[in-house]
Amino acid sequence: MVSADIKEGRRDEIAELARRRGFLWLAFEIYGGAAGFYDYAPLGALLKRRVETAWRTFYTKEGFYEIETTSVAPRDVFEASGHLESFTDRTVVCKHCKTFFRVDEGIDINKSCPECGGELEAAGEFNLMFQTRIGVPKGEKGGERVLDKSEGYLRPETAQGTFLNFPRLLRFNRDKLPFGVIQIGKAYRNEISPRQSLIRLREFTIAEAEIFVYPEEKNKHPRFEEVKERKLRLVPGEGAQAQEEMEKTVGEAVRSGTIANEYLGYHIAKVDEFLVGIGIPRDKLRFRQHEPDEMAHYARDCWDAEFFSDRYSWMEIVGVADRGDYDLSSHAASSNTDMGVYPQLQSQVQAEGEAEKAKAKAKIIPHVIEPSYGIDRIIYALLESSFYKEQVGKEKRKVLRFKKEMAPIRAAVFPLLNRDELKRKAKEVFQDLRNEAIFVEYDDSGSIGRRYRRQDEIGTPYCVTIDYDTLEDDTVTIRERDTMKQIRVPVSEVKEVLLKGRER
Amino acid sequence: MVSADIKEGRRDEIAELARRRGFLWLAFEIYGGAAGFYDYAPLGALLKRRVETAWRTFYTKEGFYEIETTSVAPRDVFEASGHLESFTDRTVVCKHCKTFFRVDEGIDINKSCPECGGELEAAGEFNLMFQTRIGVPKGEKGGERVLDKSEGYLRPETAQGTFLNFPRLLRFNRDKLPFGVIQIGKAYRNEISPRQSLIRLREFTIAEAEIFVYPEEKNKHPRFEEVKERKLRLVPGEGAQAQEEMEKTVGEAVRSGTIANEYLGYHIAKVDEFLVGIGIPRDKLRFRQHEPDEMAHYARDCWDAEFFSDRYSWMEIVGVADRGDYDLSSHAASSNTDMGVYPQLQSQVQAEGEAEKAKAKAKIIPHVIEPSYGIDRIIYALLESSFYKEQVGKEKRKVLRFKKEMAPIRAAVFPLLNRDELKRKAKEVFQDLRNEAIFVEYDDSGSIGRRYRRQDEIGTPYCVTIDYDTLEDDTVTIRERDTMKQIRVPVSEVKEVLLKGRER
Repeated sequence: MVSADIKEGRRDEIAELARRRGFLWLAFEIYGGAAGFYDYAPLGALLKRRVETAWRTFYTKEGFYEIETTSVAPRDVFEASGHLESFTDRTVVCKHCKTFFRVDEGIDINKSCPECGGELEAAGEFNLMFQTRIGVPKGEKGGERVLDKSEGYLRPETAQGTFLNFPRLLRFNRDKLPFGVIQIGKAYRNEISPRQSLIRLREFTIAEAEIFVYPEEKNKHPRFEEVKERKLRLVPGEGAQAQEEMEKTVGEAVRSGTIANEYLGYHIAKVDEFLVGIGIPRDKLRFRQHEPDEMAHYARDCWDAEFFSDRYSWMEIVGVADRGDYDLSSHAASSNTDMGVYPQLQSQVQAEGEAEKAKAKAKIIPHVIEPSYGIDRIIYALLESSFYKEQVGKEKRKVLRFKKEMAPIRAAVFPLLNRDELKRKAKEVFQDLRNEAIFVEYDDSGSIGRRYRRQDEIGTPYCVTIDYDTLEDDTVTIRERDTMKQIRVPVSEVKEVLLKGRER
Repeated sequence: MVSADIKEGRRDEIAELARRRGFLWLAFEIYGGAAGFYDYAPLGALLKRRVETAWRTFYTKEGFYEIETTSVAPRDVFEASGHLESFTDRTVVCKHCKTFFRVDEGIDINKSCPECGGELEAAGEFNLMFQTRIGVPKGEKGGERVLDKSEGYLRPETAQGTFLNFPRLLRFNRDKLPFGVIQIGKAYRNEISPRQSLIRLREFTIAEAEIFVYPEEKNKHPRFEEVKERKLRLVPGEGAQAQEEMEKTVGEAVRSGTIANEYLGYHIAKVDEFLVGIGIPRDKLRFRQHEPDEMAHYARDCWDAEFFSDRYSWMEIVGVADRGDYDLSSHAASSNTDMGVYPQLQSQVQAEGEAEKAKAKAKIIPHVIEPSYGIDRIIYALLESSFYKEQVGKEKRKVLRFKKEMAPIRAAVFPLLNRDELKRKAKEVFQDLRNEAIFVEYDDSGSIGRRYRRQDEIGTPYCVTIDYDTLEDDTVTIRERDTMKQIRVPVSEVKEVLLKGRER
């Protein structure tokens, strides 16, 4: 019944569908828009909420606590974190038209200006943080100390807010390692010339976990057993096999040294589990290790989860970094704060005298393992990989095959015909479902076929149709999105079908 | 058993408890902090998440869709919205020490500098938006047009992002009014000299609903019946009874003109319902109408929900504004975009010719009713109003009496004694509850009494204790926070008790 996918022309159709059906809208469009800024329209916001909730629940089950730190921070923070110096892009400027460009594969000195063909010259490093002033701005208030304080930046990552709170978080966790802390929130990157897409945004949402661990424990994750059989597609970056793709279990990868330690391995496996769990297809997912010259200034090792996009080829959607003690050590030095932890006591039963001795040893700065998710790119990956065009009889249909629990709308309720008695009953069913906090839509306009297509396009898993039989025997038709099969069920069982699906 | 509350000394104790137990931490404290910036620590973030989820669910039930727009926007947006001109504070500067101050009750010209006693002079209006640059900053790139584009601001409210999308939202709602759109997100206000508290933040979270309605329909809310018997404590701002407090039902208040129309009345009632629902005590809540000179530049009428704080007296926690057509008209004019809606067809059955005639009439700019919630202040109000000190036997206990469903931690699980067999069983019970996505803590340190006190302090409704009888008959003790009563229940029923409570 359903023909093979028709993939040609998919690319632009996804963007068009996302705009037309209310997933994503270019921001400030009435003022001409601004590259790198997108708004989540109603269905996009629902999808995003589902991804964020799934993420929060996933890491909460790991025993991690969420915190929420500010998105604006004073200069001191980013001076210590290294972002003032290193969170930069190299730029060139056209001698002729004066346009600035970020240096990348196509643009550098000795190449010509993409705008006017003019000669390009080096224009230095451009810091990618948005800068602002806290309080009365420079020049209006005397005193050097106050001036320094007033310089602020929009955060490029949530992680710094977590690091600054490390001593308090350690106390909250009763001075024990390991522990994990998560944040979901906005982060900013003042791109020089972003493309107009969801892929390179100036304002974006990241979900980050910072896991603090004794350096010597990195190769001993307490729950490594649970993930070690998980198979991953890996592209190690260094050594003889550089850039060669391989499939290995996490256990093998750590044993053979492809992945450096159990903590990294565990969290790479967890990223894979999460992404597959929300509906990213396994065969479009791989983990690629960064080359040494590719890593962020704070990382000593990093693996990207990459999604294969029809449009953008392989693109990073999550990074799993070993940040070592870089951040905590930097903040300890810059702020003169104790970021250390006492060495772990080897045994609970050792004599008190020995425990005291152990405590007297120098403190250790924990290492940090960090999975960092780009939520907007994950949304894009879900849209792209869920989009299908199918031949159904003589018609084509477009359908977003989201996992049922991720779909923005769970079900649509239709009266079969535009008659008052059917509409009344349909609205009743609709309202009952909404009162159960199920996301439902009501639609009575156009033919039933057209209404099905509309829901297919936004990925609604179920359509519930009220007809004249409903008024007689209180049953309805439920049509499933992917199979397009219909079943007849009593109204009293609709909720159960929508929430759990049903084997057939 | 429980004595009357002991209120003296409450004020500082709340702040101290919030810091010590992990609700709120001053941001960037290791760098000396920055006034107006707070981080949500683990328990505070949980509480905030519960408030936000309750809010989202509450307005979703109204049929409103959520969207998520950017927090950075270009200058054009705020020029049109009036914020560039009017979102300002009047300032004075000390001639002697050069410190700037916001003019308020205690500070103005003819008064002396609070810092050094020097003479104060007028220093003009200070715009309260955080300013930044999008892309390559001023001076580095030629061309006047580009420079203007690059000026950006952090939003002072989410509302503008909603207004900019109005034409697309109208289409999403199939060109029908009324409809409502919600947003929850960060907003910013670059205070000149904020107090160090949660009350006047530079970065804060707001939850706003924009309800678009035909001007002539404002006095006809379709669900007004549902709220009209709700009693409110009102302080109207204008007319003879200015500032006199009265208690009226919403229905009476609208009928007598105290509240201008049904839409305002309905949404004031909804704000009351929400706040009481999450646990703000009725007797600490009132609605006060703004005086004309007190209103924001966009508002034609506004009622604040005020919470009575022991520390700050009456303070605004929600504003319900009638913004009229101010915003949509401004953006329509500035961006040359059609923000109009066709007049409502009076009847579905009218002849097609008439419908066409009606459509040909001039379009109407909808009015906006806006409840705008200050989430951080609501968190503060919940903390303050939930805090009790009680005499229990010879001891005092501090307790946060959150509503059970708002408490950060739902239950704590204890082994009665620090013995391996009890700890093993307790961890099993703990893990089972966590797997059910219930927020639980495990604690085996200190006396059982001390562990109860710890949980009381953070508002945990239930403590589940495993003892030697548990190992025999699989029953546990559940102790309830407020009554401190204990019941014995089978392990298999623990989940039910925690989630639903139990009548006794």
